[in-house]
Amino acid sequence: MEDEIVLLDFWPSLFGARVRIALAEKGIKYDSKEEDLRSKSPLLLQMNPIYKQIPVLIHNGKPICDSLIVVQYIEDVWNDRNPLLPSAPYHRAQARFWADYVEKKIFELWSKVWTSKREEQEVAEKEFIEALKLLEDQLGDKTYFGGDNLGFVDIALVPYYGWFKAYETFGNLNIESECPKFNAWVKRCLQKESVSKSLPNQHKIYEFSVELRKKLGIESVGI
Amino acid sequence: MEDEIVLLDFWPSLFGARVRIALAEKGIKYDSKEEDLRSKSPLLLQMNPIYKQIPVLIHNGKPICDSLIVVQYIEDVWNDRNPLLPSAPYHRAQARFWADYVEKKIFELWSKVWTSKREEQEVAEKEFIEALKLLEDQLGDKTYFGGDNLGFVDIALVPYYGWFKAYETFGNLNIESECPKFNAWVKRCLQKESVSKSLPNQHKIYEFSVELRKKLGIESVGI
Repeated sequence: MEDEIVLLDFWPSLFGARVRIALAEKGIKYDSKEEDLRSKSPLLLQMNPIYKQIPVLIHNGKPICDSLIVVQYIEDVWNDRNPLLPSAPYHRAQARFWADYVEKKIFELWSKVWTSKREEQEVAEKEFIEALKLLEDQLGDKTYFGGDNLGFVDIALVPYYGWFKAYETFGNLNIESECPKFNAWVKRCLQKESVSKSLPNQHKIYEFSVELRKKLGIESVGI
Repeated sequence: MEDEIVLLDFWPSLFGARVRIALAEKGIKYDSKEEDLRSKSPLLLQMNPIYKQIPVLIHNGKPICDSLIVVQYIEDVWNDRNPLLPSAPYHRAQARFWADYVEKKIFELWSKVWTSKREEQEVAEKEFIEALKLLEDQLGDKTYFGGDNLGFVDIALVPYYGWFKAYETFGNLNIESECPKFNAWVKRCLQKESVSKSLPNQHKIYEFSVELRKKLGIESVGI
């Protein structure tokens, strides 16, 4: 019997994009169900009663929630191809540490850049760039954070790309010139179909974020 | 050559206690180095330059940081005894989900109970008890969250026990009567030497927390 795999998703979500990339890397076919987050489906509420958030991967009727936990699940189930985590325990722990850094720190700093007022803007941007530079140091001369292959940290981080681009339009941030190594890594990731086909169009993200900022009452910054 | 295993720790830390329990469950001998968090050692700053926090497990000179990542590392390295995570991918994902719930939600709600002022106190306590009841539902009729054996979620959660007890003295919370199933689970955990010897003495935690509350300028609540 063939596996039944359904992904509850929302196209601009960077958390959803992580799962899309991991499934693409493993070559898994699935049905995607787009959620309307203003009117969540009974299926989403049933499958993720705790957080009521996407992404949820439903594998033969059983739900797995939280993007990084879903990526590890995908790795555990389809462990016969394209490993997303290293096999050595120390390197696995390192990958988990930096994915967690992206999850906590990059998200926190990015939210600060995104919502802070003019006067705090510069401080927030500086902290954010420092965090990206720390990640650049971790990348070093490797092709991907995962080494020669796209891995857990790459999958955690690269979906931010579309949102960074949108922000460069609103703000003073120029990631391309401030973090050239990070920028080169993004370009390498985008050369992979698993990434380029899983990330939403930048311009669509920009338009979506204009609407989002209006709704949240965030003033335009920098421009 | 024998493994050299050092744990940078701080006795009241519930995060440190997680690592102590995991090492005890695996029967691993190690050297514990107590950190003075007001004057962190050069070793701690060198081994965890990002967060500068305990616990850090140093295994043959290599540091692993963040308590839940360390517990997974211990599981990956010493995988020949007392499994801390289930082998089936779906159950592994469930264990990760609930350990993450403890890490995020229980910590957040507990901090709110701990620091909120009288008027917000009741709301915070109610939310906190609801979260514990959700965990009780997950436990169901099992001996431990891990089933017949102590597992990842048990290790994430049980170190809160000493702090809950301290709080019952400050506040109006009576976890024993509000969450009897949780309380019975704590007692079962404490029957295991790996847990009872890894958790600090409740009275010492109480005295420590009195000092901490003074330093943080938190008013006494409930009493």
